[in-house]
Amino acid sequence: MNILRRGRLGEIKEDVARYTTSLSFDKEIFEADILCDIAHVIMLYKQDILKKEEAEKIISGLKEIYKDGLDKLNLDPSLDDIHMVIENELYKRIDDVAGKLQTARSRNDQVATDLRLALREKIVNILISLIAFLEDLTELSKEYKDVITVGYTHLQHAQPITFGHLLLSYVSAIERDILRLLDSYKRVNISPLGSCALAGTGFNIDREMTKELLGFDGIIENTIDAVSARDFIAEVVANLSILSANLSKICEELILFSTYEFNTVEIDDSYCSTSSIMPQKKNPDVAEIARAKLCSIYGNLITILTILKALPNAYNRDLQEITPYLWDSIYKITDTIKMVHGMLKSLKINKDRMYFLAKANYSTATELADTLVRELNIPFRKAHNIVGEIVRISIKERKDVIKTAKEVLKKYNLEIDEEKIEKALKPEENVKLRKTLGGPNPEEVEKRAESFKKRLEEYKRNVLMKKEKIENVKNMLLNYNL
Amino acid sequence: MNILRRGRLGEIKEDVARYTTSLSFDKEIFEADILCDIAHVIMLYKQDILKKEEAEKIISGLKEIYKDGLDKLNLDPSLDDIHMVIENELYKRIDDVAGKLQTARSRNDQVATDLRLALREKIVNILISLIAFLEDLTELSKEYKDVITVGYTHLQHAQPITFGHLLLSYVSAIERDILRLLDSYKRVNISPLGSCALAGTGFNIDREMTKELLGFDGIIENTIDAVSARDFIAEVVANLSILSANLSKICEELILFSTYEFNTVEIDDSYCSTSSIMPQKKNPDVAEIARAKLCSIYGNLITILTILKALPNAYNRDLQEITPYLWDSIYKITDTIKMVHGMLKSLKINKDRMYFLAKANYSTATELADTLVRELNIPFRKAHNIVGEIVRISIKERKDVIKTAKEVLKKYNLEIDEEKIEKALKPEENVKLRKTLGGPNPEEVEKRAESFKKRLEEYKRNVLMKKEKIENVKNMLLNYNL
Amino acid sequence: MNILRRGRLGEIKEDVARYTTSLSFDKEIFEADILCDIAHVIMLYKQDILKKEEAEKIISGLKEIYKDGLDKLNLDPSLDDIHMVIENELYKRIDDVAGKLQTARSRNDQVATDLRLALREKIVNILISLIAFLEDLTELSKEYKDVITVGYTHLQHAQPITFGHLLLSYVSAIERDILRLLDSYKRVNISPLGSCALAGTGFNIDREMTKELLGFDGIIENTIDAVSARDFIAEVVANLSILSANLSKICEELILFSTYEFNTVEIDDSYCSTSSIMPQKKNPDVAEIARAKLCSIYGNLITILTILKALPNAYNRDLQEITPYLWDSIYKITDTIKMVHGMLKSLKINKDRMYFLAKANYSTATELADTLVRELNIPFRKAHNIVGEIVRISIKERKDVIKTAKEVLKKYNLEIDEEKIEKALKPEENVKLRKTLGGPNPEEVEKRAESFKKRLEEYKRNVLMKKEKIENVKNMLLNYNL
Amino acid sequence: MNILRRGRLGEIKEDVARYTTSLSFDKEIFEADILCDIAHVIMLYKQDILKKEEAEKIISGLKEIYKDGLDKLNLDPSLDDIHMVIENELYKRIDDVAGKLQTARSRNDQVATDLRLALREKIVNILISLIAFLEDLTELSKEYKDVITVGYTHLQHAQPITFGHLLLSYVSAIERDILRLLDSYKRVNISPLGSCALAGTGFNIDREMTKELLGFDGIIENTIDAVSARDFIAEVVANLSILSANLSKICEELILFSTYEFNTVEIDDSYCSTSSIMPQKKNPDVAEIARAKLCSIYGNLITILTILKALPNAYNRDLQEITPYLWDSIYKITDTIKMVHGMLKSLKINKDRMYFLAKANYSTATELADTLVRELNIPFRKAHNIVGEIVRISIKERKDVIKTAKEVLKKYNLEIDEEKIEKALKPEENVKLRKTLGGPNPEEVEKRAESFKKRLEEYKRNVLMKKEKIENVKNMLLNYNL
Repeated sequence: MNILRRGRLGEIKEDVARYTTSLSFDKEIFEADILCDIAHVIMLYKQDILKKEEAEKIISGLKEIYKDGLDKLNLDPSLDDIHMVIENELYKRIDDVAGKLQTARSRNDQVATDLRLALREKIVNILISLIAFLEDLTELSKEYKDVITVGYTHLQHAQPITFGHLLLSYVSAIERDILRLLDSYKRVNISPLGSCALAGTGFNIDREMTKELLGFDGIIENTIDAVSARDFIAEVVANLSILSANLSKICEELILFSTYEFNTVEIDDSYCSTSSIMPQKKNPDVAEIARAKLCSIYGNLITILTILKALPNAYNRDLQEITPYLWDSIYKITDTIKMVHGMLKSLKINKDRMYFLAKANYSTATELADTLVRELNIPFRKAHNIVGEIVRISIKERKDVIKTAKEVLKKYNLEIDEEKIEKALKPEENVKLRKTLGGPNPEEVEKRAESFKKRLEEYKRNVLMKKEKIENVKNMLLNYNL
Repeated sequence: MNILRRGRLGEIKEDVARYTTSLSFDKEIFEADILCDIAHVIMLYKQDILKKEEAEKIISGLKEIYKDGLDKLNLDPSLDDIHMVIENELYKRIDDVAGKLQTARSRNDQVATDLRLALREKIVNILISLIAFLEDLTELSKEYKDVITVGYTHLQHAQPITFGHLLLSYVSAIERDILRLLDSYKRVNISPLGSCALAGTGFNIDREMTKELLGFDGIIENTIDAVSARDFIAEVVANLSILSANLSKICEELILFSTYEFNTVEIDDSYCSTSSIMPQKKNPDVAEIARAKLCSIYGNLITILTILKALPNAYNRDLQEITPYLWDSIYKITDTIKMVHGMLKSLKINKDRMYFLAKANYSTATELADTLVRELNIPFRKAHNIVGEIVRISIKERKDVIKTAKEVLKKYNLEIDEEKIEKALKPEENVKLRKTLGGPNPEEVEKRAESFKKRLEEYKRNVLMKKEKIENVKNMLLNYNL
Repeated sequence: MNILRRGRLGEIKEDVARYTTSLSFDKEIFEADILCDIAHVIMLYKQDILKKEEAEKIISGLKEIYKDGLDKLNLDPSLDDIHMVIENELYKRIDDVAGKLQTARSRNDQVATDLRLALREKIVNILISLIAFLEDLTELSKEYKDVITVGYTHLQHAQPITFGHLLLSYVSAIERDILRLLDSYKRVNISPLGSCALAGTGFNIDREMTKELLGFDGIIENTIDAVSARDFIAEVVANLSILSANLSKICEELILFSTYEFNTVEIDDSYCSTSSIMPQKKNPDVAEIARAKLCSIYGNLITILTILKALPNAYNRDLQEITPYLWDSIYKITDTIKMVHGMLKSLKINKDRMYFLAKANYSTATELADTLVRELNIPFRKAHNIVGEIVRISIKERKDVIKTAKEVLKKYNLEIDEEKIEKALKPEENVKLRKTLGGPNPEEVEKRAESFKKRLEEYKRNVLMKKEKIENVKNMLLNYNL
Repeated sequence: MNILRRGRLGEIKEDVARYTTSLSFDKEIFEADILCDIAHVIMLYKQDILKKEEAEKIISGLKEIYKDGLDKLNLDPSLDDIHMVIENELYKRIDDVAGKLQTARSRNDQVATDLRLALREKIVNILISLIAFLEDLTELSKEYKDVITVGYTHLQHAQPITFGHLLLSYVSAIERDILRLLDSYKRVNISPLGSCALAGTGFNIDREMTKELLGFDGIIENTIDAVSARDFIAEVVANLSILSANLSKICEELILFSTYEFNTVEIDDSYCSTSSIMPQKKNPDVAEIARAKLCSIYGNLITILTILKALPNAYNRDLQEITPYLWDSIYKITDTIKMVHGMLKSLKINKDRMYFLAKANYSTATELADTLVRELNIPFRKAHNIVGEIVRISIKERKDVIKTAKEVLKKYNLEIDEEKIEKALKPEENVKLRKTLGGPNPEEVEKRAESFKKRLEEYKRNVLMKKEKIENVKNMLLNYNL
């Protein structure tokens, strides 16, 4: 029976227990809970609240429970949550001394601590996979820096770009996702431990010490806020939602570009499926499923924000229901990054089709207008209108664009060398010209790829240091001897 | 190996298989899939597309698979989904004839059919539990028709009501949830079967026949729409979201009213928990968890709607990812209805506190204003202002309200019998007076409870007929002999 | 000054007034408020609560205010809302008798009534525009019943369909949106009037009478629920969200199909724009803006549902903030229906390109598999695998598909007439064959278009009757003489 | 007529123009657009792309347009947007030279630049108001550091706290909102200018120069990403959503605590309203409206994220529709901060009621358990159970808690001085004891308030420097002479 209920309430009904338990998702914080317990006990001992032999007994009990693993525990829903399961197990192993574990602590500060410990590690792992993804993308962008294709706006041909340039646009967007997660990490990795139920404790505890032992970067000071704040979860899931929007753009382009009609890329067979009725089909299932799974991160965000709406201080049990949506978001994103990464890495591209599209449909018209501006010193807006007219006539009357250009210019009493028109209309010349910082010019693509790479290395160093610190904390606590 | 891939694509990678499979939530449509298969095969036989012995073999194979149950099947993720798992199993049992099952059908129309079959049954079950809940609430409202309490607007005391009157407000709101689900049922229980991939088939199939066999009420005609429509899911989850809003109102009131401060109701111990640190606590955990779980239905709705956003025709694999959010919503609501029902049924009420609150804080002031209108024939707005002044002075100067009333009236050269003032200010007189249709007057509460009950019986008949029809279809198909 | 505050509270600050006023969106219920006032006064008179001359004065004052229009009113935010503005104006016109208008009524039941009156009319208007849209679409589907194009699943070529068939898929989806709105209308057009603040009144009012006068179809009985229920708004906006999903699918297809790559349709110039820098561009701006505006209906739905989350009984001022999101959704949808309707009506189609695509990429492979099943009596799954192999070889080795088919069949010791293979692979033969109910076959398209049309006429009759009833109520009340 | 359409497309229809225009919300970027124009022209001149007299003409034209203000402009919807309105006006003033403004630029990079310029200023203003709010809150928390009240978990009495401690929990939460906005500022204040349509330009522009002139902190390099990225908007609105959750918690507590039942605080009359029917009412309307308006930020976030879902590169007109939800969120939050700030600053508190509640309902039980642990050296869990039993008996048998404690302890063969029990149960002793870092102890509250204050000053310095830089950029550019 749940030891907490003994004093005050009767036995819980089975369906109520199943409805209210968090055990199904508490496995995510099993390790964190043990770490939190050990750090707390060390501190209690150092502050003379526990005796040495008491602390030793509890710590060695916890270490054993950890070693035996989650599978060995009695996960009866009537035990509420992982904290009670562990305390319960501790009783079995070390008897009444187990009851001293909860001295100067509450499940409220404990769970807030556990969540932060578990989440920081998962963020680090996501960051590592994002960085690996971008490293490959920058490599690919260098490989494809010379591959001319058409760039779209409004899904209509706009201007020639290079495929490397397009890939760097993915890198550029997702770099900001990395930065967002790094910023959020600062608000995740702070310690609520010692806040107890909501108002601290009369025992002489040392919050700084547990903070240090657990490798937190700071303390969330106010004890009421410390136990009730879940904004760090909302923030991380909001970041993942924005990352989802960015990844869904990539999936959309993979689906579009691999249609029969676009036909500029081919997704590797291993990320496709066929049909149960149409044997010719090769469907971009992984990209579609990714596009859809990413939507559920938005849904999770709304669930979390709605739970938080108008929830008074301090801990309310509603908060428990936020957690599964955090873990779900983390796992969905982790898997999806892997899939998108895999699809891009194994992507085949169709250079001929890309070049054809860049050439086929007036995507160099802006450059023609720019040429008129430079050669004839007319205002851009006028050049824009003239080229618009050229395009319109050329489409309507299915006439050669160069011929049309000359006729239209004549109408306006303007004249320009035919070869200059020709040059303006060639995609490869066009792309070469566009050396603007961050533009499609192959050398510029190379240059930008290099500068991204350098920044990625920096992020990597930062993230790996975080990972190392986390591992050290674990090793230290799980092998602690007073 | 997945038999579909053999012809066209190589083997699938394990992580991709895990990412793309729907098997984890396909258990919900295992039975529906078998029903759909059997009805389809019967039709193929009757339309001379399958031979009798072929149809017999397939049907008996399917019946066996059903009897052996889901647990006996090989749920290897590389098999994609339940349809392929069953077809795969059928091969093992009846060899190559199994390959005829998919004649004139696609997974696209099959899964759309399965979802509708499984969903209609779950809707019926939700309706049954809602009706049972409201039956108990109407009974309780009659029991508490005389219990006077205060009604709130803006969470401030407004006017005296009866507790039965309040309970009927829950009935009234949730009755509309029942009506919404009944309306949606019409758009769920229609057959997409026979639409095949998206464009029907050249085989001479009979969509009317399968519709009848499966107990559908109609056919979703256009074959493109039939396979790609998931609006029926969005609609049901939208209905459940609105139901969630209604249930969350009840939870909120349970939480509020059982605070030390309100103290008008007491939730049964079996729906409460205590604290790991504060032994005196009795916390309304179930109501809190319900309040939070209901938020996730909103999140699910957003996930579903976002997946559907700008998704072109016809079937896209994105649609697969909608389904788990449907089932999750169904289960969360089902469990939550049970909890809220249980909490209300076992609720203890504190009549003395309710009466005290109804009397304590001027909640009868409107009636005093109305009395002035009736007795002195002054405009309501003037009476309203006079009573406002009486209340203000009485609060500020902590003076008896009747005395204050007389003084203020005098100032305006108005006069009225003291006993009429007294009567206006007594909650029980006040409530008796308010016989408005649907109002708090005890007899009116009784009357309305009766009319709700009559309507509930009607809904019940309707719903039980639906349930019976569904059961008949199952029995007929699962015992079918050609 | 706000007459309500006089008695009880001091003057409101200007920024608070601006923050709390609903006047900016109350213009939507100006007419409804007058109608509600007049019906209420008629009832008060008939129930002997007001004297004839009082009622006459008030009604003629209200009629004048209506005739003078909203623009003549003093919309000072400190007056809170439209009810107080009108009452205030009534004082100016008929002096103290104006104070009798609010007898036996509260703003709580008044605003709930107004919202329902205004909303029902807007629903009717949306229904009218949806029906007109579908009427044109069914006509177009008949016009294009013979136009062969390719149908997509996973955005890959699936099977040949007809363009008329595709258009009917839009009709089929949006027909359900019509049905949903018609169902919701039943829960909108019910009367909360007479519920007063939350608990009815001691005056002997007649809720049935005002219900009849205002043309409501029923009464929302429980007075607490009547004033606090906003589920009817959530329900309508949920319906509009699902309609949004359907319309966004159409927009997406317009954008896709009018790309250079797909090139199967051309959106009329009047719905396109060009670029400020790229003169050749013709961008599908209206379809894009529509696709985006539709997303905001989802956002509005979330706002509304979140406001309702855990809101206790009865009226809370939060409810006021729901309304602007209702009107915004209504206007956005109304405008968007018009745009999508206009784009489809003026759409040019490129039949040659459509036919080319239907032929180009093995979209008839399913029919080839079906032919093998029929001619060789092999299981479909086997035929599926054989055709898969044919397609794979034909793509990889760039070989003629008929030749490949013969070779592969030979490998399996199967044989079939070449002309049967040819026939199976011809899109026009393929489409002719697929006479399945609701399928792409031209005659079937014609038949379905006719049956849609018949149903549309039925809906139209229903909706126009509703409109007429609404108009009659308005005329009657706005010209009422006691 | 729209000069862009002249060349390529015919006239736009009026309803289409109204549907597609962004002019209604472009007023927010009028100033930014002029700044962007001037910086661009300066750069074009310095790079020898424009002649001095051309640049001078354009700049002085722009300066005049700015001085004349938005009201003087022709805001005809057929002109699309503010960029075209200004260009149009420029034509009127300086004739054809105006056409040179758009050299080497597109509306795509222009609007992205404008949005960032306008947004950064609004973020700064929000930060200023948040800091001012928290400054007042820390002052109040010091004022109320000794005021004992009860702290809640699950809305049940948990433990005694001080009101200052509670106020600091608001400060603590909102401090993180400040930090989030400061972090996001880094991703807002970067320059996309020079990216042109999506692919840079062949003109020799200098992106670094415009970045410097406009006071950006960095450049968003990749030109495709630069014009299509709207994650900075999603990020800011996500931050505001989390801030909304935090503010809604405060509103909820204001509403709760000012009920008749809680009665611990009184909201100033200027933030309340009364009823149109119940003259005694004083309703917390502002807190309610705030609670509701905050929900619409969630809705806005969903709108924005849904628009971004699966939107391919680069600029799509959908992006335009994101902007109004940004500005709406900004204004709603700005107004709401002001209201919540005002309510808290003018809040009256009821110390007697607070103390009564802290004493009334066993909120000191944890301390009693802790006392047993310290005095009797029994495990906390055992003490917890014993005190649970004491509370249960005391409630059930309505017995004095001290007496009960002694009896129960006896049962367990434990004994403790009565005065120690008394001390443990006194709220003021209890609070004094809880000196935990961040806890309710008055001196600790004072200390934390001081450390918050110090950090607030730091943020203020940072934010004011940003503001100054923005002002300097404006002054410089709007008074620029070549």
